[in-house]
Amino acid sequence: MLETLEKRDFPIKNLILLSSARSAGSTVSFRGKEYTVEEAKPESFEGVDIALFSAGGSVSKLLAPEAVKRGAIVVDNTSAYRMDPEVPLVVPEVNEEDLKLHKGIIANPNCSTIQMVAALEPLRKAYGLKKVIVSTYQAVSGAGAVAIDELNDQAQAILSGDSFEPGVLPVKGDKKHYQIAYNVIPQIDLFQENGFTFEEMKMINETKKIMHQPDLKVSATCVRLPVVTGHSESVYIEIDKDSISVGDIHAQLTAAPGVTLQDVPEEQIYPMPADAVGKPDVFVGRVRKDLDEDNGFHMWIVSDNLLKGAAWNSVQIAESLLKLGLVK
Amino acid sequence: MLETLEKRDFPIKNLILLSSARSAGSTVSFRGKEYTVEEAKPESFEGVDIALFSAGGSVSKLLAPEAVKRGAIVVDNTSAYRMDPEVPLVVPEVNEEDLKLHKGIIANPNCSTIQMVAALEPLRKAYGLKKVIVSTYQAVSGAGAVAIDELNDQAQAILSGDSFEPGVLPVKGDKKHYQIAYNVIPQIDLFQENGFTFEEMKMINETKKIMHQPDLKVSATCVRLPVVTGHSESVYIEIDKDSISVGDIHAQLTAAPGVTLQDVPEEQIYPMPADAVGKPDVFVGRVRKDLDEDNGFHMWIVSDNLLKGAAWNSVQIAESLLKLGLVK
Repeated sequence: MLETLEKRDFPIKNLILLSSARSAGSTVSFRGKEYTVEEAKPESFEGVDIALFSAGGSVSKLLAPEAVKRGAIVVDNTSAYRMDPEVPLVVPEVNEEDLKLHKGIIANPNCSTIQMVAALEPLRKAYGLKKVIVSTYQAVSGAGAVAIDELNDQAQAILSGDSFEPGVLPVKGDKKHYQIAYNVIPQIDLFQENGFTFEEMKMINETKKIMHQPDLKVSATCVRLPVVTGHSESVYIEIDKDSISVGDIHAQLTAAPGVTLQDVPEEQIYPMPADAVGKPDVFVGRVRKDLDEDNGFHMWIVSDNLLKGAAWNSVQIAESLLKLGLVK
Repeated sequence: MLETLEKRDFPIKNLILLSSARSAGSTVSFRGKEYTVEEAKPESFEGVDIALFSAGGSVSKLLAPEAVKRGAIVVDNTSAYRMDPEVPLVVPEVNEEDLKLHKGIIANPNCSTIQMVAALEPLRKAYGLKKVIVSTYQAVSGAGAVAIDELNDQAQAILSGDSFEPGVLPVKGDKKHYQIAYNVIPQIDLFQENGFTFEEMKMINETKKIMHQPDLKVSATCVRLPVVTGHSESVYIEIDKDSISVGDIHAQLTAAPGVTLQDVPEEQIYPMPADAVGKPDVFVGRVRKDLDEDNGFHMWIVSDNLLKGAAWNSVQIAESLLKLGLVK
């Protein structure tokens, strides 16, 4: 988040870094100046214009209302408020205007949702969207630094013929843990009553909310892979217009903000996580018409889950707040 | 293949091992006896009952007809004859009866097709099948031993901070090669005119042929992952019957030959490649009803691509030939 603020040259008069009591006291460098991290308390938000939250849902539930009470606009990167009807859930390329309805808290969507809606919105706007079926290929960095360490340690253990004990993935707080190196785990976040995981339900519900289309048919299967950074998605859509060609879709995606088309099969050009890392855009390729459904299309969507999927979208929301004159 | 023949105690009177001129002369142990590999020539097949071919499509095109001319039944593990209308394409659990129509050559389907049709056939038989949308998560061993070495070497290089030069994946004979360790490549086999890869078209066409359902709607997105062995598939289906429950699907899969149900979300039980390696079965889990389509279901299908996806299905075909009295 700090790197992105620095890179974007975001106009900051005064920066306050907050953490839990445990992490307070450490120092962080920003634009060549050292900052001491302070313990987050309700009073910490006095005089703050924009508060970027990214410390887990329970912290946001506790402190976001306190920040709002003191006049801050909160951009929350957790799932705590995303489905709250009072809270705009925003991907600026898709529904920036929703920011105007905010009552203090703005939610940053789930990483896998953000990249998908950024790529699908231009098609929805042009042709209408009826149905989305997505299968994800998600990187471990979505589960935090401990998950990255676990993947690397396991990979080294397997290559060296050593034993290891999984302890983090698929979900740190769940009962069982499984090998992720050289494996694939079809579980991200906890299982819900209906057999879908919470990650899958996030993609389903957040997509409908961001696109303002409660009747959109969306289904998701979310899968964790031995990749450090970069989420990929195999997406099937049905649009609401007949006789649209791959060329038409290409034209829409080429014109879309924040989207880069990488789709030249004959030159083996398509998006891959290793290429997307460190870049803010959403990359789309492998666009092809379904062989049976005239209005069905397949595509492959890749983005850096730590940038557009998290930090960059949060900072973009903050930039939009400034642009729309919503920060007093 | 030899390991599987050994494990199944397949009745072999006389074993002949054939290879290219280059590999001839090496010795291989089978049931405690040493065999010298001979160069494959048309005459090599004199007196042979069953010939298991697995040396690439061009070798099969050249030598399978020679073997048939000399009275052998060929079980071909390449794509050379799969879509030939004269050649049965067989997964014994699905269409064993097709073996009776053989004219000398029987084709073993593509690895990713086999595990999918084995899992879907019981549902097709019980309810009818209208539509299949699959996204695959495929292991590198499908691209041969050089691809396994490439994955391991790259993983070690990345962990050690060394540089490396991709040279095998996604397709050894294609123009460009990409990193596979810690990456995801949405290309398996060469691209076709329609934007689908040959691997995707194999899944689409072979599924219709094996199921004898040319009007079945099938689409596929095939993706290579940093996994050594075990293909996974995220599959969406629409069946031809209303009001079927997940419990009904579970019952069909539990009763199906060659299929093992692993589907207890509350205990985090679902199939994963690391668990499937070395086992002949097709594992199915994450079965759930689509939230919008009453006759739509999602599931997750995993199998060892070197066993059910290749050697085991070939040996199964040979066993079925014996069982059906088709070997003279």
